[in-house]
Amino acid sequence: MIKKFFNEALSNSVAYKNLEDLVATIGGRLSGSPEAAKAVEWTKQKMIQAGADKVWLQEVWVPHWVRGEKEEGVIVSGNGKKTVPVCALGMSIGTPKDGITAEVIEVKTFDELKSLGSEKVKGKIVFYNHPFDQTFINTFEAYGEAGKYRWAGAAEAARYGAVASIVRSMAINLDDFPHTGSMGYNDSIPKIPAAAISTNGAELLSKTLKENPKTKFFLRQRCEMLDSVLSYNVIGEISGSTHPEEIIVVGGHLDSWDTGKGAHDDGAGIVQSIEVIRLFKTTGIKPKRTIRAVAFMNEENGLKGGKKYAAEAERKKENHIAAMESDAGGFTPQGFGLNMKPEQKEKILRWKNIFLPYGLWSWDGEGDGADISPMTNKGVPGFGLVVDSQRYFDIHHAPTDVMSWVSRRELELGAASMAGLIYLISEYGL
Amino acid sequence: MIKKFFNEALSNSVAYKNLEDLVATIGGRLSGSPEAAKAVEWTKQKMIQAGADKVWLQEVWVPHWVRGEKEEGVIVSGNGKKTVPVCALGMSIGTPKDGITAEVIEVKTFDELKSLGSEKVKGKIVFYNHPFDQTFINTFEAYGEAGKYRWAGAAEAARYGAVASIVRSMAINLDDFPHTGSMGYNDSIPKIPAAAISTNGAELLSKTLKENPKTKFFLRQRCEMLDSVLSYNVIGEISGSTHPEEIIVVGGHLDSWDTGKGAHDDGAGIVQSIEVIRLFKTTGIKPKRTIRAVAFMNEENGLKGGKKYAAEAERKKENHIAAMESDAGGFTPQGFGLNMKPEQKEKILRWKNIFLPYGLWSWDGEGDGADISPMTNKGVPGFGLVVDSQRYFDIHHAPTDVMSWVSRRELELGAASMAGLIYLISEYGL
Repeated sequence: MIKKFFNEALSNSVAYKNLEDLVATIGGRLSGSPEAAKAVEWTKQKMIQAGADKVWLQEVWVPHWVRGEKEEGVIVSGNGKKTVPVCALGMSIGTPKDGITAEVIEVKTFDELKSLGSEKVKGKIVFYNHPFDQTFINTFEAYGEAGKYRWAGAAEAARYGAVASIVRSMAINLDDFPHTGSMGYNDSIPKIPAAAISTNGAELLSKTLKENPKTKFFLRQRCEMLDSVLSYNVIGEISGSTHPEEIIVVGGHLDSWDTGKGAHDDGAGIVQSIEVIRLFKTTGIKPKRTIRAVAFMNEENGLKGGKKYAAEAERKKENHIAAMESDAGGFTPQGFGLNMKPEQKEKILRWKNIFLPYGLWSWDGEGDGADISPMTNKGVPGFGLVVDSQRYFDIHHAPTDVMSWVSRRELELGAASMAGLIYLISEYGL
Repeated sequence: MIKKFFNEALSNSVAYKNLEDLVATIGGRLSGSPEAAKAVEWTKQKMIQAGADKVWLQEVWVPHWVRGEKEEGVIVSGNGKKTVPVCALGMSIGTPKDGITAEVIEVKTFDELKSLGSEKVKGKIVFYNHPFDQTFINTFEAYGEAGKYRWAGAAEAARYGAVASIVRSMAINLDDFPHTGSMGYNDSIPKIPAAAISTNGAELLSKTLKENPKTKFFLRQRCEMLDSVLSYNVIGEISGSTHPEEIIVVGGHLDSWDTGKGAHDDGAGIVQSIEVIRLFKTTGIKPKRTIRAVAFMNEENGLKGGKKYAAEAERKKENHIAAMESDAGGFTPQGFGLNMKPEQKEKILRWKNIFLPYGLWSWDGEGDGADISPMTNKGVPGFGLVVDSQRYFDIHHAPTDVMSWVSRRELELGAASMAGLIYLISEYGL
């Protein structure tokens, strides 16, 4: 059965063709945008085409943050000016219309910021220059370590009177693309603009500061928060033949950052989840339990879709026996993160050898996925597709998240892996 | 120790920088070409820079085949003409100066060709349209199956009186690049020109033939064989501290096809082998046994370098205890193919768990490498770096084998994996 899924996915490449279409016809699709609305309709149609027994939309109110005009960032040292690639972090406020110019104080950590204190920080732009630690084999660990400067950097800097914050992009290589991503404010601290600078830009800014500590930075970004918008999770279902009341969710998130095309993040997870439905239908395999592909809205800047789905499941007293997510890019699959009770994990691990011929060797992790976390936090067993992470932070939240970075076979292998494991869960339960 | 290798390789990226330099300053370097001669000198310098105790050249006479002017291929159906991407296969003869025009007969297999016989084949161009089988998980298996039509297609076609042969490129995706590679003639059968056509070109030719079985093809290629040239294997050595007479070889091939830049195939193996030397030297780890990095010349169209190295080793009665090769591209490493006696394999497999945290899970294969095969065929234990194969046949022997397809971290992980396993062999023997 599992071989059938792989043969079909690799030979007919529907997930890849769907991703090409999503990227070409819609592209970036941040929550609340017209593109996100189009993506809802697109996904509904694709789920119908995939053969789902039932397809429906679930209402979700989402934040509507807009980037506005292209951002500007300029290093100003003496009479020298050098434009560098910057972008606003998601949910940040904008600068005044004419931008902000201020001296820059570079820090590597929050501890360093704290030790500088208000005296050194007040009136300045705090520049978090925390490079990814290259020595982690799994690049998500480096992201985990550096990511807090993107999320909380502005609030921490504002605590000491900074006027803006700039974070080195969450990228593992030196390149010329700013990598965006969500940030959050602290209600008890004033809001200041938060931007990301490309890694090459960060290197240049740091070098310039060493040469001239009085270096200033000009930042202009016109992003703003608009009123919330009604949007949707898209759900497609195959009813279980013998235990229809037991539900297995497989999903990814439909929204994506606006600076790229959302090919890997998380177009991949969306087309793979749709492909799971198609693989069961095309091969004629009738699952014993119900399989639901869910395209969650608003993972990137709010997680409203994941929260709404879990709340509705609880309200309706639905019995979710498993939730699976693909949100680490459409790269070569390596296994699954298992976030569940030891006895459930033991059951899954008995199937490990079935998947080894397909290259799925990694079953020790516990990561599942942000969208399903509102469910797995309440005890639903969670599964996260583990993929090769080496190239992800070249494209993550960046203008490089486009189709040319996606390998057809890698993407399809992921879809077939998900279908394979879901088949076993559907046959034997947990 | 092994963690040290990984930290150093991932943090300082010397192998990647070397590959960038090789590709930018030399590029494609087919045996006998001026570029191959430059690559010999380049490698010698890089081995010295890596800190090898001793660096020397080993003379190898190599064939000198040249492509000549850019090839032309045109589908001619009625009054319609359509130019398609073609290239000569390595070692093929050229066409007459003005090219060849003939009707085309399409076959999928040698059996089909045989059943057509001279009656149907005589005077025509045989078109081998054997697509890669997508259902293999490891793409090398698909290559293994389709590859014979490239190697032996011309000789088999000539047996039935064909005037030329065209093979569908050894590519796993549909693209517009012809993939070259070696072919061989049979001395008892007349030589005819052999070319590769891009996979999209093959699809078009096949479609046109279905519409019009009288479709002709115009092929013009001006390749030819020149006199053999004196070239070299480049060897860099670290002497073993306690068993210097026991030699561990680690290598790749220095020559590459001329249509691309030889980044993955096999620039990757070359810079990784040099990196093994550098990693020992930089970390200050003194190997007990001798480690020899070998850049073999002429893997692609003759294997003269591998044969010469093995012959010299035998002549000098050197004691090679292991030979390792990286020649499957600089992609994420997954393990090693082990071509050796069961008791040796058992010893290696005891080290498996040491490498699992670095993602090396695949130890069941037996593939090692073409360059070391003259040694391993005589009983030297062989090790082949196993890497993720999904993207290899997008770039293999094609104009796409350039730096933009190489991931820094994937390449460096391979180098550190090789150094790690060599360290254990050096410490504990086999």
